[in-house]
Amino acid sequence: MKAAEYNEDCKWMREALEVARQAGQAQEVPVGAVVVADGKLLAAAANARQWGLDPLGHAEIIALRAAAEKLGSRYLNACSLYVTLEPCPMCAGAIVLARVERLIYAADDPKAGACGSLYNIPQDARLNHHVAITRGILADEAGQLLSDFFKAQRALGKK
Amino acid sequence: MKAAEYNEDCKWMREALEVARQAGQAQEVPVGAVVVADGKLLAAAANARQWGLDPLGHAEIIALRAAAEKLGSRYLNACSLYVTLEPCPMCAGAIVLARVERLIYAADDPKAGACGSLYNIPQDARLNHHVAITRGILADEAGQLLSDFFKAQRALGKK
Repeated sequence: MKAAEYNEDCKWMREALEVARQAGQAQEVPVGAVVVADGKLLAAAANARQWGLDPLGHAEIIALRAAAEKLGSRYLNACSLYVTLEPCPMCAGAIVLARVERLIYAADDPKAGACGSLYNIPQDARLNHHVAITRGILADEAGQLLSDFFKAQRALGKK
Repeated sequence: MKAAEYNEDCKWMREALEVARQAGQAQEVPVGAVVVADGKLLAAAANARQWGLDPLGHAEIIALRAAAEKLGSRYLNACSLYVTLEPCPMCAGAIVLARVERLIYAADDPKAGACGSLYNIPQDARLNHHVAITRGILADEAGQLLSDFFKAQRALGKK
């Protein structure tokens, strides 16, 4: 049963990684997110801060909004969110507001992560919704994707 | 000098309160936000969670995004954000990401506030941008607006 859940988590994280990879190829910071309900893909999005000049264009925000629109509901109670990088405070807060059931992320973000690193907002007992969290699914692959991207950007003199 | 800044803060908070009031009249939770740069209004928005079925439709998010679009920039370095209620974790994180210079808010939110109540995300030394905060401008008026709204909603059996 545990193995089946792990395999399912890896399957969806691979989808999120593929979205992230495509973003990286288009010069966007390679972070991807997918929202899944009842074993089906509801929404997928990449980070889009550079593309859209949107300071708030993180993959999680775009995917959650798309999923809510698709469901016609403000709440994503039965949904799982897969992300390739630990969500920041903004995205962690959004995950609580949208009442996501489960968060699964790949790489930790020691600089700005708010789901275990700097804070653990989705599991703060003082807030009115709490989220189950699974960490580290395909973390090496997600971390490598990001470090390769920033290495290439530095080589181009962009960062 | 202090008095001039206070008067300026009250002026813009009144704008935010007016936006909040209009939202309340339209059955939306009455929270308003305005973004100001160089003494001019850049963007104004009300909470829109009920209207748009958007779990992330807080006034601050909508106003910050509109201001970034207007400026054609991801960053709002020289901007002040006025809000009638202390921002939640999502909005506090967004304020940091957008690199807002100053946050001015009216009423504290002891249940979900992330700018001094539960957390103080905009002034977390571990994050890469820090925001000046002024609290309590027209707080009584903003608090009254919210409590009147929820009292009326309860009377209607809606909450």
